[in-house]
Amino acid sequence: MPEYLPTAPAKGTRDFLPAEMSVRTQVFGHLYGVLELRGFLRYDGPILEPAEIYERKSGQEIADQQLYTLTTKGGERLALRPEMTPSVARMIAGNAKSLQFPVRWYSHPNCHRYERPQRGRVREHWQINADIFGSDSANCEIEIFELIHDMMGALGATPDMFGVRANDRNLLSSALTDIVGVTAEQLPQVFTLVDRWEKSDRTKLSDTAAGIGLTDKQFEKLTEILSSGVALLDELPEQVKENSNLVKVLSSGAADLITFDPMIVRGLAYYTSTVFEVFDTSPENRRALFGGGRYSDLASLFTSQQIPGIGFGMGDVTLIDFLDTHELTPKPRSEADVVVIPVVEELTDAAREVAGRLRKAGLRTLTPVELRKLGKELTRADKAGALAVVIVGQEDWDAGNVTVRGLATREQRPVAVDGVVDAVTSLLRV
Amino acid sequence: MPEYLPTAPAKGTRDFLPAEMSVRTQVFGHLYGVLELRGFLRYDGPILEPAEIYERKSGQEIADQQLYTLTTKGGERLALRPEMTPSVARMIAGNAKSLQFPVRWYSHPNCHRYERPQRGRVREHWQINADIFGSDSANCEIEIFELIHDMMGALGATPDMFGVRANDRNLLSSALTDIVGVTAEQLPQVFTLVDRWEKSDRTKLSDTAAGIGLTDKQFEKLTEILSSGVALLDELPEQVKENSNLVKVLSSGAADLITFDPMIVRGLAYYTSTVFEVFDTSPENRRALFGGGRYSDLASLFTSQQIPGIGFGMGDVTLIDFLDTHELTPKPRSEADVVVIPVVEELTDAAREVAGRLRKAGLRTLTPVELRKLGKELTRADKAGALAVVIVGQEDWDAGNVTVRGLATREQRPVAVDGVVDAVTSLLRV
Repeated sequence: MPEYLPTAPAKGTRDFLPAEMSVRTQVFGHLYGVLELRGFLRYDGPILEPAEIYERKSGQEIADQQLYTLTTKGGERLALRPEMTPSVARMIAGNAKSLQFPVRWYSHPNCHRYERPQRGRVREHWQINADIFGSDSANCEIEIFELIHDMMGALGATPDMFGVRANDRNLLSSALTDIVGVTAEQLPQVFTLVDRWEKSDRTKLSDTAAGIGLTDKQFEKLTEILSSGVALLDELPEQVKENSNLVKVLSSGAADLITFDPMIVRGLAYYTSTVFEVFDTSPENRRALFGGGRYSDLASLFTSQQIPGIGFGMGDVTLIDFLDTHELTPKPRSEADVVVIPVVEELTDAAREVAGRLRKAGLRTLTPVELRKLGKELTRADKAGALAVVIVGQEDWDAGNVTVRGLATREQRPVAVDGVVDAVTSLLRV
Repeated sequence: MPEYLPTAPAKGTRDFLPAEMSVRTQVFGHLYGVLELRGFLRYDGPILEPAEIYERKSGQEIADQQLYTLTTKGGERLALRPEMTPSVARMIAGNAKSLQFPVRWYSHPNCHRYERPQRGRVREHWQINADIFGSDSANCEIEIFELIHDMMGALGATPDMFGVRANDRNLLSSALTDIVGVTAEQLPQVFTLVDRWEKSDRTKLSDTAAGIGLTDKQFEKLTEILSSGVALLDELPEQVKENSNLVKVLSSGAADLITFDPMIVRGLAYYTSTVFEVFDTSPENRRALFGGGRYSDLASLFTSQQIPGIGFGMGDVTLIDFLDTHELTPKPRSEADVVVIPVVEELTDAAREVAGRLRKAGLRTLTPVELRKLGKELTRADKAGALAVVIVGQEDWDAGNVTVRGLATREQRPVAVDGVVDAVTSLLRV
């Protein structure tokens, strides 16, 4: 007996059979629609990029542990992109002269990270990236927040199902420095501590704070600040607030799109001011769905031109988990609307002709490639999700007719070939 | 001065800026549409697969020279897929029990081959794969040929612009054996020779034939056969023809979809009977656009179950070259239909509200994130391809109005906010 290779996909990667793929294309099709309505333009880049761009920018964890790298026969050291931002930074920098900033761009790449597969975490995932490049205006923040609400709405999510928590790293820095008395040297470590705040228990947090050199009193104050919400703003210097886009959003008509939350910092890579996280409000799934933020200098690896940006990445795994939790996942599309069945081999050409008419009218139409008993074909058509069949029999055909049958009603009647589109369409409308 | 990294993509790969991406999404959107109308279901798989499946199946050239491989920290030896067939074979084999054969599947993966970049050849390309799995019937051939004509038609190609050359390897085997007197041992080498026939000059072909051991007379006969077209069929044994799906197609109502051409063999991997090639008829671009064929046992690496299939892969590079040659390439889509411009910062929220109304009506609508002089914004809107702008001024707004302006006509008039959708829509219709 020959040895067969395994049929499972490589660890941490996924096959998308038609049913799963139909869900994916429907979900992301809705999202493309919202993005296009807002004038976001789709772009794409190679999956392989010079490894260096990640090693220099994506943060230590990605570069050291999560990067898939390879060296080509030509000696190029390449990596499968773990995220899209370095690619788009490269593209924006390379085309900065011909672009009319600000630009709204989106993409839908697959990204690879070598991680231990677990719930919500895979090694290859599909991620929508949406950004506005080339403007410092707080209107960008507003547009991005509106976009997020529109995208979630297009998937059927109501405002009670999710929320957007937003922060400005500069506001947090000011609070930590001016109120808690954190030193400039301690600041990066305290940011990391805040980033882990919700995932760690209090003892561990307190130990870490002590390790950084914070007193018990400072730790108390830190705890207080992080849970103070919008009240924190009253305690911050005017000058810091004046320079904050987030404060502008909070005093605009768009304030209700977000909740100010000093606890949000989004790791340490890239982001320089506004940061945000979209979370699921359902108790069983309460966690970050996706997030993003603003960077003051997107393309510094590639150009001296300072190009700011703001955007987010939205992965398919957590998104579809969210839709499942809230019973919003679309049903896979049926295989066809209608099946045209010739009763004998000699009528195959006739069936093809009828099928051609139906397709011209926009109906998704199958014809069997193998001739089976009519009863079997009716069962198959039903399983394929078709609502109607057209039966092409010899006597009918000789008289210029075919038989149209509703699969739900099981009622059938002969119609003239010229009327087949109308007859089927009216059946599908029921 | 810091050293900047290059902004060009890795060798042989491509960036798709929005204009290029818009062409790609339009072209492939048309093709998805045709496939869905025929009940083809889309699937997808991981870009990384076990390297072994290519090394054992994809032919020596791919495995030895063209494969991008890497070894993960976990010790898995993976490859970036150079083609989709081994992935889909794995998926079909792994799900054979739950599938209702025959199935029509399609996908649109990016595939990687390490080749020397040249016209029509890149290292990463995007390829439509369409197949029917699980049936031996000649109706599959007919459906695949019809599909190809429909796909080309959906891109605007008329029948004079392309042709489908088809062969059956078994017919060619029979002709070579029974008419030319090629021995079983010589057969594979003669197939390779035929595969190179149109790319080599006669002296080289004749030398190769001599090297294989063919006499001058045999070489003459071979030359004659390869250019004989459909007349060759008269010389072949009935039994061979009876078993040929291609012969069935040629005697059906679908015969005019193809031209029988004994010269088509499509390399040596996979295909076991029907093979075909779609070619461009224009003199400047006369070459294969894409091709495919039938395999009697798709998934033999993965299962003992014999699953036949027929299909093709259609790459983006040659396809878009074809469209360019025939001036069929779609224009990139504009950035937006309409731009809503607030004349002062205080009207930003008002402009957002108006933009929201327009988007709800399905109009692609931009609002500027930075406030500039109206004249500048009008120029920008025009460059973005918008046909209308809505100007939100203070006096207008206080009176419940906005100003709607056609960018081509430069005519403008105030309309009530409630009437803005109608006013813009009627402008766009002109």
